[in-house]
Amino acid sequence: MHRNDDYYWDKVRETRPAEQRQSLIFQRLKAQLDYVYEEIPFYRQLYQAHGVEPRQIDSLDSFSRRIPVVTKAMLRQSQRDHPPFGNYLGVDFKEVVRIQGTSGTTGEPTLFAISAQDWDEISEAQAMQCWAAGLRPDDIVQIVFPLSLYVGGWGLLGATEKIGAKVLPMAGGNTERQIMLMQQVGSTVICGTPSFCLHILEKARQMGVDLAAGPLRLGFFGGEPGAGIAGVKQRLESGFGIKAIDFGNVAELHPCSNMECEQRTGMHVYQDIDYTEVVDPSDPNISLGYNRKGAVVYTHLWRKSQPMIRYFPGDETIITDEPCPCGRSYPRMPNGIIGRLDDMLIIRGVKFYPSDIEEILRSISWLGTEFRIVIEQKGALQEVTVEVELERAVAPADHQSLVEQKLQANLGLRVSVIAKQPGTFPRTAFKARRVIDRRTGNQDE
Amino acid sequence: MHRNDDYYWDKVRETRPAEQRQSLIFQRLKAQLDYVYEEIPFYRQLYQAHGVEPRQIDSLDSFSRRIPVVTKAMLRQSQRDHPPFGNYLGVDFKEVVRIQGTSGTTGEPTLFAISAQDWDEISEAQAMQCWAAGLRPDDIVQIVFPLSLYVGGWGLLGATEKIGAKVLPMAGGNTERQIMLMQQVGSTVICGTPSFCLHILEKARQMGVDLAAGPLRLGFFGGEPGAGIAGVKQRLESGFGIKAIDFGNVAELHPCSNMECEQRTGMHVYQDIDYTEVVDPSDPNISLGYNRKGAVVYTHLWRKSQPMIRYFPGDETIITDEPCPCGRSYPRMPNGIIGRLDDMLIIRGVKFYPSDIEEILRSISWLGTEFRIVIEQKGALQEVTVEVELERAVAPADHQSLVEQKLQANLGLRVSVIAKQPGTFPRTAFKARRVIDRRTGNQDE
Repeated sequence: MHRNDDYYWDKVRETRPAEQRQSLIFQRLKAQLDYVYEEIPFYRQLYQAHGVEPRQIDSLDSFSRRIPVVTKAMLRQSQRDHPPFGNYLGVDFKEVVRIQGTSGTTGEPTLFAISAQDWDEISEAQAMQCWAAGLRPDDIVQIVFPLSLYVGGWGLLGATEKIGAKVLPMAGGNTERQIMLMQQVGSTVICGTPSFCLHILEKARQMGVDLAAGPLRLGFFGGEPGAGIAGVKQRLESGFGIKAIDFGNVAELHPCSNMECEQRTGMHVYQDIDYTEVVDPSDPNISLGYNRKGAVVYTHLWRKSQPMIRYFPGDETIITDEPCPCGRSYPRMPNGIIGRLDDMLIIRGVKFYPSDIEEILRSISWLGTEFRIVIEQKGALQEVTVEVELERAVAPADHQSLVEQKLQANLGLRVSVIAKQPGTFPRTAFKARRVIDRRTGNQDE
Repeated sequence: MHRNDDYYWDKVRETRPAEQRQSLIFQRLKAQLDYVYEEIPFYRQLYQAHGVEPRQIDSLDSFSRRIPVVTKAMLRQSQRDHPPFGNYLGVDFKEVVRIQGTSGTTGEPTLFAISAQDWDEISEAQAMQCWAAGLRPDDIVQIVFPLSLYVGGWGLLGATEKIGAKVLPMAGGNTERQIMLMQQVGSTVICGTPSFCLHILEKARQMGVDLAAGPLRLGFFGGEPGAGIAGVKQRLESGFGIKAIDFGNVAELHPCSNMECEQRTGMHVYQDIDYTEVVDPSDPNISLGYNRKGAVVYTHLWRKSQPMIRYFPGDETIITDEPCPCGRSYPRMPNGIIGRLDDMLIIRGVKFYPSDIEEILRSISWLGTEFRIVIEQKGALQEVTVEVELERAVAPADHQSLVEQKLQANLGLRVSVIAKQPGTFPRTAFKARRVIDRRTGNQDE
């Protein structure tokens, strides 16, 4: 058991010089490649189709250049062809102890089957990350994430148990009850989606409760890019009186190995949990290295059940190896996950993510927590309307044009703004869905 | 790890002759009494107020005669006076790893704080019970219970993990999704409240899905007395194609030590987990022994964190020591929990429980799953109206009077029946609230 005043979970590992770590990663990678090629039909067939064999991989560089990526569509197809878990399970089904799934609200979920050993190692890996973020045995951890098919909340729960801290498993739902229990129990840590946690803050204000005055000191935010957006992080930190930690979660990877440390200089990339590359989105065999924006690709170095080798979730990021003041030698994503390539909007030639609009809106203090981005086809033109909520019933007289100007200046795109009264949009206890695309052929609503 | 074909989890323990077990129970009881008297102010003060000391207890009989019971009201008062966990925590707060609470929808919840060692022992105890009920390592266990503050679902999850079976943590919500995943994954075990599981059956029928034709073989039902009611058990067994196991859960006890074995001859009383007595409801120091109906009183033999010594939840039952064909020597509750004394209705001198009405309604095949019991004061008289749903839009022409006659014949009370169309009443993913009391001073609605 680690003590409250231990600084590292595993000092040797966390401060290992980069070259040494690369060498260990390559050894693990080779072992994983041999394993998936020998044991997993999905990978063997994929590599045979690409004319590559594990024995040809003699460096991290040749791994990037020669090994094809895996996409969500490929996994779904494999599960359709080989129900229920696809032909990439790896372990004997007897070893599986957990079945989880995507949280998608439409269509059949992708299923995840995880072995006993992997489930335990996931908790251990997440404990190391949460420790670096400041979670300690004395903490009372209020889990606001759902604890159901979605894996994100289970990772935090497992980490909390490994660390020996106290779990208060609220698991979504009833916002007032979240606030009431937070006060009654004296929670010191909150974990949830940024959307729902912002809504908790909004409700607390309505109830006349100042959560920043209570014992909360730390928050873990995932499931959405939120806490990587400066304005969102600032609202969460001042509203709850906490350090807000951004962490990644890609359900296929569990654990996703990206989490900020206490310094909050962008998510650390725990390369010895999942090896992580930034590549050219149009050719994932071209590695971009550090400090260039591209698509991120992950490889499980340890998982045996449904291991992901070069999984391409479609997220954009930049990785840097500039040192972090925390002392850990892991590289970082200074801007977090910038956006999901699938979510990118291209309107009249301007490319942007919904999170770009969120970042601008969050910097305006008199706007509330919810908003919607409505995209419509008007004749030949595509128009964007941003519907915002005011934080209170009063606001500057020219508030709509103020928001329009700020959006135009930052996005380089003229958009219309419609301001609504506080509480207009429905709140979610999980992930918000804020883009309403009314263009022909888009059925996002 | 136990093997699929092991019959017992712990043969020596489960088949121990009654007298030997009583003697072990008494040793544990003495140790617990010494512990709570020395370490826990709540118990020391209670026993001093009743003029009793642990050293005076020299038999199970004197334990029953001299040790006062603990009620929910006393725990709530203790938590009000000594927030948040009351003055009966026992262990150092550092040892606590779980904070759970009552699922009550009104008022402040009662909080439960559980130590690491107790949390592990709870899972071990529940594993032994679930094994006797037929749960095995090869099973895929779909947990339909919420996994949040309510402890019931966590007990099943812990038992499933100890046994090494596979957990599919659906945790309430979306009925169609429950059915879809059940089919996609091939769940063999379902765990939930009888109300919600009956609703799953109703929805499956609407979807044209015959769940009895699938791989489900076993179900664990708790949170409500449901699966102890013959008509409910029969509907669950035939609808899902399973053996339906009734288990108790009293959140204050966790684990509640009542669970049926595969024979389903009534819940076994695992006396060496929680020592269980049946007493006179008006004087809980009068023990009624076997085969007499009374109030049940439980004592934790192992728990150190918030241990319950003679906890009186207000439930009525009968315990018998007639042997069960399963071979275990634990006594049984042949009728399960008959009712909660607080829920008992007395109308025009006739005493009955809502579950008595449920039992009668469940025996009528053309009635649907939901119903309401409405109690009104009409002048000097109290009137009961039972609102039922038809299973389909068609039913016998004189259906209302048929139900009225059956209720009157079985209850000995004239009640009115109003039949409604299928789907009239709201469904719940957790516990149903079916009594609507409109008498003055009753605000149950």
